Amino acid sequence: MLSPMNTYTDPAIRLTMMPRDTNPHGTIFGGVILSYIDTAGAVEARRHTGHERFVTIAMREVVFHEPVFVGDLVSFYCKVTRVGNTSATVHVVVEAERHRGAGERVRVTEAEVVYVAVDENQKKTAIKRERIKEAQIELREKEQAAPVAGDGMEMAGASK
Amino acid sequence: MLSPMNTYTDPAIRLTMMPRDTNPHGTIFGGVILSYIDTAGAVEARRHTGHERFVTIAMREVVFHEPVFVGDLVSFYCKVTRVGNTSATVHVVVEAERHRGAGERVRVTEAEVVYVAVDENQKKTAIKRERIKEAQIELREKEQAAPVAGDGMEMAGASK
Amino acid sequence: MLSPMNTYTDPAIRLTMMPRDTNPHGTIFGGVILSYIDTAGAVEARRHTGHERFVTIAMREVVFHEPVFVGDLVSFYCKVTRVGNTSATVHVVVEAERHRGAGERVRVTEAEVVYVAVDENQKKTAIKRERIKEAQIELREKEQAAPVAGDGMEMAGASK
Amino acid sequence: MLSPMNTYTDPAIRLTMMPRDTNPHGTIFGGVILSYIDTAGAVEARRHTGHERFVTIAMREVVFHEPVFVGDLVSFYCKVTRVGNTSATVHVVVEAERHRGAGERVRVTEAEVVYVAVDENQKKTAIKRERIKEAQIELREKEQAAPVAGDGMEMAGASK
Amino acid sequence: MLSPMNTYTDPAIRLTMMPRDTNPHGTIFGGVILSYIDTAGAVEARRHTGHERFVTIAMREVVFHEPVFVGDLVSFYCKVTRVGNTSATVHVVVEAERHRGAGERVRVTEAEVVYVAVDENQKKTAIKRERIKEAQIELREKEQAAPVAGDGMEMAGASK
Amino acid sequence: MLSPMNTYTDPAIRLTMMPRDTNPHGTIFGGVILSYIDTAGAVEARRHTGHERFVTIAMREVVFHEPVFVGDLVSFYCKVTRVGNTSATVHVVVEAERHRGAGERVRVTEAEVVYVAVDENQKKTAIKRERIKEAQIELREKEQAAPVAGDGMEMAGASK
Repeated sequence: MLSPMNTYTDPAIRLTMMPRDTNPHGTIFGGVILSYIDTAGAVEARRHTGHERFVTIAMREVVFHEPVFVGDLVSFYCKVTRVGNTSATVHVVVEAERHRGAGERVRVTEAEVVYVAVDENQKKTAIKRERIKEAQIELREKEQAAPVAGDGMEMAGASK
Repeated sequence: MLSPMNTYTDPAIRLTMMPRDTNPHGTIFGGVILSYIDTAGAVEARRHTGHERFVTIAMREVVFHEPVFVGDLVSFYCKVTRVGNTSATVHVVVEAERHRGAGERVRVTEAEVVYVAVDENQKKTAIKRERIKEAQIELREKEQAAPVAGDGMEMAGASK
Repeated sequence: MLSPMNTYTDPAIRLTMMPRDTNPHGTIFGGVILSYIDTAGAVEARRHTGHERFVTIAMREVVFHEPVFVGDLVSFYCKVTRVGNTSATVHVVVEAERHRGAGERVRVTEAEVVYVAVDENQKKTAIKRERIKEAQIELREKEQAAPVAGDGMEMAGASK
Repeated sequence: MLSPMNTYTDPAIRLTMMPRDTNPHGTIFGGVILSYIDTAGAVEARRHTGHERFVTIAMREVVFHEPVFVGDLVSFYCKVTRVGNTSATVHVVVEAERHRGAGERVRVTEAEVVYVAVDENQKKTAIKRERIKEAQIELREKEQAAPVAGDGMEMAGASK
Repeated sequence: MLSPMNTYTDPAIRLTMMPRDTNPHGTIFGGVILSYIDTAGAVEARRHTGHERFVTIAMREVVFHEPVFVGDLVSFYCKVTRVGNTSATVHVVVEAERHRGAGERVRVTEAEVVYVAVDENQKKTAIKRERIKEAQIELREKEQAAPVAGDGMEMAGASK
Repeated sequence: MLSPMNTYTDPAIRLTMMPRDTNPHGTIFGGVILSYIDTAGAVEARRHTGHERFVTIAMREVVFHEPVFVGDLVSFYCKVTRVGNTSATVHVVVEAERHRGAGERVRVTEAEVVYVAVDENQKKTAIKRERIKEAQIELREKEQAAPVAGDGMEMAGASK
């Protein structure tokens, strides 16, 4: 059995919200969040299955729990919840680390997105089962390897 | 009874898709369409109820039927399907008028979006029933009045 | 004779203005409005003549009557005022439905834009007269057909 | 008499066009050029008159001579052609230095833009004649002073 | 001693590059990468020190190793390398997970950025040493807590 | 010897900062400035050497002296400080002409950027020495020729 190591612990997408992302009320425009949910789920579908190309076919039960504010660091955590012959379903949880205040983390939105695997001509195609296993192994290796080789940089910590 | 005159006949949002709206596959990024769906439904909720401020609380069953291409003229048609005490549900149908070819019209996406009425402090508030009636009347008047007064401009038609 | 059915009754472009569209004074940047005028006129020129490709060659008498504000729903209504052998002139009227207040509609800008028909190599080309007639008929049919087929959704009106 | 030193020799705006600025034909979207014309003229009106705030009231005879391409360096040169009691008229000439080929310079667009002076409440106000003189002197001084003090950096020229 | 748990294992920023982020050569514009480096380092400085507001005062030795392509998933990993009385230095490593091919990970850029702590009036201020310790503890707790509480969703793995 | 006529007197890039360019503090986002520095240096490298294609390989000692505000007119002045066999080093000085107040000019940022010459396949290539001389001559001619031919427009000055 392959454990889903990256599931919900490594964000698929993470970024800071800027004034250009606001709606007329001054909070972050829901459309911006929806855009990143769409992208984040596709990133996860690809990482999980090893299939290169997916297109979104449906979004289900997008729920907006709390507003997002300018300056918030927003993380899109994903979990593949179902892999069919040609489709993958991804649950996306969106968390905001508040800019104002003590950096509190709040679950702001969640959604379920369904992607269909396509080939280079944008035609529906099968997700190869054997490719999923390899993808899982690669993913585990990626996560175990430090993204950066130790390069002897000194670290200035609080205890200095 | 008030007939929903503008329902599905007058687009809440309509615009042309540009190269900056594309995804890595070269078609229009789904997130862009989702952003306008969110805005379009809010426009309709406001027009239908006369309530000024809405925030999105949920999106249900967003279905992507067909891809959208650069240059397509995309229209977001809306119908309010339910008005509760504090919320309004809007069905949004997205149509693309193709840029390439004979300008064929294709239903590309549809979605159901739920909005909640808020006051100026972003707190949930009741939608006033009597305000809805006025809104309907205003809407009908707006649609019957030509947006532009006849200003004597000559019209060049095909028969010239 | 072909009546210009869509003229000034169906917006060529319509969208909500966002904070990212503002100028340093906090009102909507005129350049944003000008961009949509340019696009709206081209949409109309194409719909009216059935010719696929136009490039803008001139803008005449753009007049800014009133400022546009964040949140306003802005509609670009167009009328083709002249069709020459290779060019089409479009009058564009821009209306804002105010976000603040009772949703009052105000004519904010107007302009006359001249487009020239080009072929796929961007060379000037003739607008085919017979194509204009077909375009007019298609346009009428499009407008008479409801954009969305009746799909049995119940409608929540003010009378409920 | 004050000579208009900066007139047409110092660009009001200059920047490189990027893929995100393209229209569906792959050339630069006219709306992008129009946006910068609007800004450039306002920069010049301010520099010429010393008045701080202007809003655009009209654009006349915008003529698009040649297309602009991705990578072109585009300069917006301005000349104030008329100063009234409350308004300033600016002629804007847009030049592209081509990215492809030998960097040829081409006049791509030109326009006449009319601005009205406003106060901090966006109300029309008089342009102070004495302020114009000061502005002219400041402008001349600015142009004579090198923007950067000589800081002893060595210059690598072709003769090295 | 506090171990820098999140250092280089959790991206400060991560996102997918889109066509709108390209330069005239068709690769990702360096300015886009620089923008996210600037933001990523500030996210890390804040997380590491617990100080809320930082402004960038210098960037040192930004090195672009490899181009970034459309569709690449780009992660900005950060390590605080020095904390002074009022400043924090952050080393940022940028990795691209290639969209094309087997999702290979490549170190594309790296940079050292110096931030200065400011108060709400944008004036330079001291970084509180005791606040750093708390920040480290909070960070460790955040990373140990799963971002999403177990909600019983079934997981579709490769072994199914 | 060829004198570097345009050095530091003609901006490589100049534009007005808009609300969409702000960071969560309300000042201009450093990433926006960095993006234009990158572009400005490349413009200068090309103009100075006559070589068409450059890619950025390093940025050194970017120093942010002062914040930039919405509405400021920002100019990027450049000087090529070293031309190697395949690389060019450009010093970029960024000045803001303040929107608020008397239009004071402030040096806000400076940076040194290194570019490498590439061919159409993005491979490193030599900068041709003889091409540099021609570029210098062209540059001088460009600067001596008025960008706009005298077209008899009357000039409204302060003395009118």
